[in-house]
Amino acid sequence: MLDIGDETLVLTHDAMAEGVHFLPGQDAADVAWKLVATNLSDLAAKGAEPLGVLLGYRFGGDDTRFVEGLREVLDHYHVPLLGGDTIGGPGSQVLGLTALGRATCRPVPARSGARVGDGLWLTGPVGGAMIGFEALQAGHGDSAAYRRPAALLAQGQALAPLVTAMMDVSDGLLLDAARMADASAMTFTIDAQAVPIAAPEARRGEALRWGDDYQLLFTAPAGTALPVPAHRIGEVTARRDTALLIDGAPPSGSLGYQHS
Amino acid sequence: MLDIGDETLVLTHDAMAEGVHFLPGQDAADVAWKLVATNLSDLAAKGAEPLGVLLGYRFGGDDTRFVEGLREVLDHYHVPLLGGDTIGGPGSQVLGLTALGRATCRPVPARSGARVGDGLWLTGPVGGAMIGFEALQAGHGDSAAYRRPAALLAQGQALAPLVTAMMDVSDGLLLDAARMADASAMTFTIDAQAVPIAAPEARRGEALRWGDDYQLLFTAPAGTALPVPAHRIGEVTARRDTALLIDGAPPSGSLGYQHS
Repeated sequence: MLDIGDETLVLTHDAMAEGVHFLPGQDAADVAWKLVATNLSDLAAKGAEPLGVLLGYRFGGDDTRFVEGLREVLDHYHVPLLGGDTIGGPGSQVLGLTALGRATCRPVPARSGARVGDGLWLTGPVGGAMIGFEALQAGHGDSAAYRRPAALLAQGQALAPLVTAMMDVSDGLLLDAARMADASAMTFTIDAQAVPIAAPEARRGEALRWGDDYQLLFTAPAGTALPVPAHRIGEVTARRDTALLIDGAPPSGSLGYQHS
Repeated sequence: MLDIGDETLVLTHDAMAEGVHFLPGQDAADVAWKLVATNLSDLAAKGAEPLGVLLGYRFGGDDTRFVEGLREVLDHYHVPLLGGDTIGGPGSQVLGLTALGRATCRPVPARSGARVGDGLWLTGPVGGAMIGFEALQAGHGDSAAYRRPAALLAQGQALAPLVTAMMDVSDGLLLDAARMADASAMTFTIDAQAVPIAAPEARRGEALRWGDDYQLLFTAPAGTALPVPAHRIGEVTARRDTALLIDGAPPSGSLGYQHS
């Protein structure tokens, strides 16, 4: 975040590497889409309006498909490519993207503002990317949720003036909720059944731990009239010795999925 | 470049890869320095004041030395690290840096503004990085000019209101001068002996072609009182069938050194 003149800029930078964030054989157009959409999702969580992106790109993959996907995602979100740099030479594909946005609401929502009594909300289902990833691995079924995540820019901008805390769920709902609870020095109580999932009921536990869905997770004071559809999945309570209580108990096992 | 409120932002992004822009055995602190300084040099050429940088970094090199060099260069130029992303996993080291600056002068200097009769100027000697690179390869002698280039921020800001065109010399004086001449649709006549070099006289031709010195190359109307030391190395003339005339003749051989 950076104040300049009477505006506040929001800046994000994500790097993606072959073998870490995407598979060597994956369609480069999908890689481009995801690289841009995940950065725009960061802006969405800040209620920011995107101004443009800068790309660092290493030639050597399917450069034509990459450029096609890049054009597609930038057109879709009406975001200009402001600049960037390309490099050649041998080595695995690594991509970097900087996205630049303008805050539409100040203070800009952070993870740290949740207060006792706030509701905990989620804009939509999790687990869809998990199912999509499995479809991609299997070679059949609908993998779009994994390959082409949406950046919820309009929702983020509509919510920003009303929320006490907000973030996008990239690494799994439970892990990211715990981060927000820690940043706010609160404990979040979550009703697992209230979480919308885009996966079979038998896989609810996994859906709550899988990442890549990019829904917005936010807290808002009780009684807030929300301008966009969202699901109340829990409540903010005074800090106890755990960040999360799932159906009254601390979560068991891993909370989620952490990129190195 | 991006107008926001009543300010103009200048954005640059450079990517550097092991084996292309630096050697596998090179001190990671020097790599960090160069990554930042070269991006700040881009800002200098636009007369911009740096606001901050965002870094994309892949773990796996000498991360401690990298962070030391990063801190050193950011402290030196009083520039904050605004954010970034790190990735792990196997693969060669690739770095990306976005630098963000505020234009101090509008219109922001471009390569395309040189006019007939303007003088062609250079802020300081070229060839120092070539000598420094050779010292580094040889394992003795002063390699600082190659390892730790300076970003001429103060000079760029002082010159910006006065120049008709400006750029930093990253890929070699002749190559970059030809680019500026082409962008301006002019021919630049250069007096080879007037170019200051930081190399033995016998290597003047190489010094004019080697990159990595990051001097500012600019054009200014005849009679302009310059606020910083600079060397007049030639003149802007109406476009002929070549971008450059060196001592009256088109340059022979390669103009410079092009990163892929």
